[in-house]
Amino acid sequence: MNKQQLFEQIQRKKSFLCIGLDPVLDKLPKHLLKYDNPILEFNKQLIDATHDLCVAYKPNTAFYETRGVQGWDTLVKTWKHFPKEVFTIADAKRGDIGNTSAMYAEAFFKEESSGMSFDSITVAPYMGKDSVSPFLAYQDKWVILLALTSNQGSQDFQVKQSDHHKLYEQVITTSQQWADSHQMMYVVGATQAEEFKNIRRLAPDNFLLVPGVGAQGGSLSAVCEHGLNKQCGLLVNAARSIIYASNGEDFAEKARAEALALQQEMEQILVAANLI
Amino acid sequence: MNKQQLFEQIQRKKSFLCIGLDPVLDKLPKHLLKYDNPILEFNKQLIDATHDLCVAYKPNTAFYETRGVQGWDTLVKTWKHFPKEVFTIADAKRGDIGNTSAMYAEAFFKEESSGMSFDSITVAPYMGKDSVSPFLAYQDKWVILLALTSNQGSQDFQVKQSDHHKLYEQVITTSQQWADSHQMMYVVGATQAEEFKNIRRLAPDNFLLVPGVGAQGGSLSAVCEHGLNKQCGLLVNAARSIIYASNGEDFAEKARAEALALQQEMEQILVAANLI
Repeated sequence: MNKQQLFEQIQRKKSFLCIGLDPVLDKLPKHLLKYDNPILEFNKQLIDATHDLCVAYKPNTAFYETRGVQGWDTLVKTWKHFPKEVFTIADAKRGDIGNTSAMYAEAFFKEESSGMSFDSITVAPYMGKDSVSPFLAYQDKWVILLALTSNQGSQDFQVKQSDHHKLYEQVITTSQQWADSHQMMYVVGATQAEEFKNIRRLAPDNFLLVPGVGAQGGSLSAVCEHGLNKQCGLLVNAARSIIYASNGEDFAEKARAEALALQQEMEQILVAANLI
Repeated sequence: MNKQQLFEQIQRKKSFLCIGLDPVLDKLPKHLLKYDNPILEFNKQLIDATHDLCVAYKPNTAFYETRGVQGWDTLVKTWKHFPKEVFTIADAKRGDIGNTSAMYAEAFFKEESSGMSFDSITVAPYMGKDSVSPFLAYQDKWVILLALTSNQGSQDFQVKQSDHHKLYEQVITTSQQWADSHQMMYVVGATQAEEFKNIRRLAPDNFLLVPGVGAQGGSLSAVCEHGLNKQCGLLVNAARSIIYASNGEDFAEKARAEALALQQEMEQILVAANLI
């Protein structure tokens, strides 16, 4: 999916919501356990109940790998269930030397090889340009590079200063030379709201994937105050607050209600910003 | 496997060789294509032909993920074929927020969940302490943290100076507070031989996983000159130079010959250092 198509979807749905599909078997509604693959059923019902309210889905690969071969099979089948118009994010945080990143790119972008073709993948920047480039070789596929993450550990290295620039600032500035805003997004945690003004200065045109709203405590309005740009430029992710809104038979209905509340808040923000 | 057991294996086998199992279907000997799972057969024959000459195997997960569900199944079955005494490394370069890294730890360390229980996993440091800690909760399991990698891109961020310390130095120094040398190793590329003296100053007791000998051009003797410590402290990885030594029916035999040549070089080094 290209940038214009993503923005058009945002305008059409009046939403820049991304839903994180991070299912844990122990937290699933009990009535789903009768299915052959409860997690797949959980995902499918969530997708069916919310896809008109969100513009992106983001399964985190860890939650699938933890169930071994069956988990990977669930990830592939979940990908197959995504509606065509939705932007899909493999939240995999990969990155390795060039020939190895090329394999990861094939795993997540090339359906003939792996059975899946996500629109984008999250990538860790530590290994530098040649660890990122292989993902950029696919047309209309995106790298979402970790910049400033939502967790406590973001303070360990990401904010260290070198030549008066924090590491995450260097990651953004340097990687702007690897791809433009039509293939490169950045992960910026919603818990880092005070940094959005600075990040928009460094990356005015890029989309930012923003986790941390909801269970992690980030504020949507604080993120939007400085994070919005001319094409919205934000994909705000919520996972636990939506997918575990209820653990009863009404889980999908309650997930929809949570997603709807966020979509309505986003609609007001988009209207106020003259983006719809 | 604990540190003492690893050192004893090194002494017994007179080797600190790690073999990277990074199979690509197109490069496999043609006669293997008749098997239901050619890559698994390739791995099994390589393991059978080399396990007395190496102390560790390191499958890189990218080369399995690229084949989707079947690839993940091959990874699990390859893990099951490893001899019990060998140190196993999931070269996965994972790392995410705490609850997600806990899922990755389960995926690679907990056989009941995923069908695999590697001794160790490579982890990317960018997201800091809470992205690494969940892997350390498993007894006698290891984190192998990326420090200074073998690729060109290592120059983009890893060597940036902050407060007179390069980023990779900060990664080593900071992470020493997260775990001691009984659970923490570091990835240092063999192509970075001039930095080993400095790294040994920062991490005198830790094992270092050293890729980059062979196809990537690193020198074994240069690595050992400053890299060895009192318990050897090195696992030197070779992949392509061994596993693709021949693409004929003699591939396993030729792989053994390559591994033997490295083992014999390592034996001389261990003798000269009074470690055996």
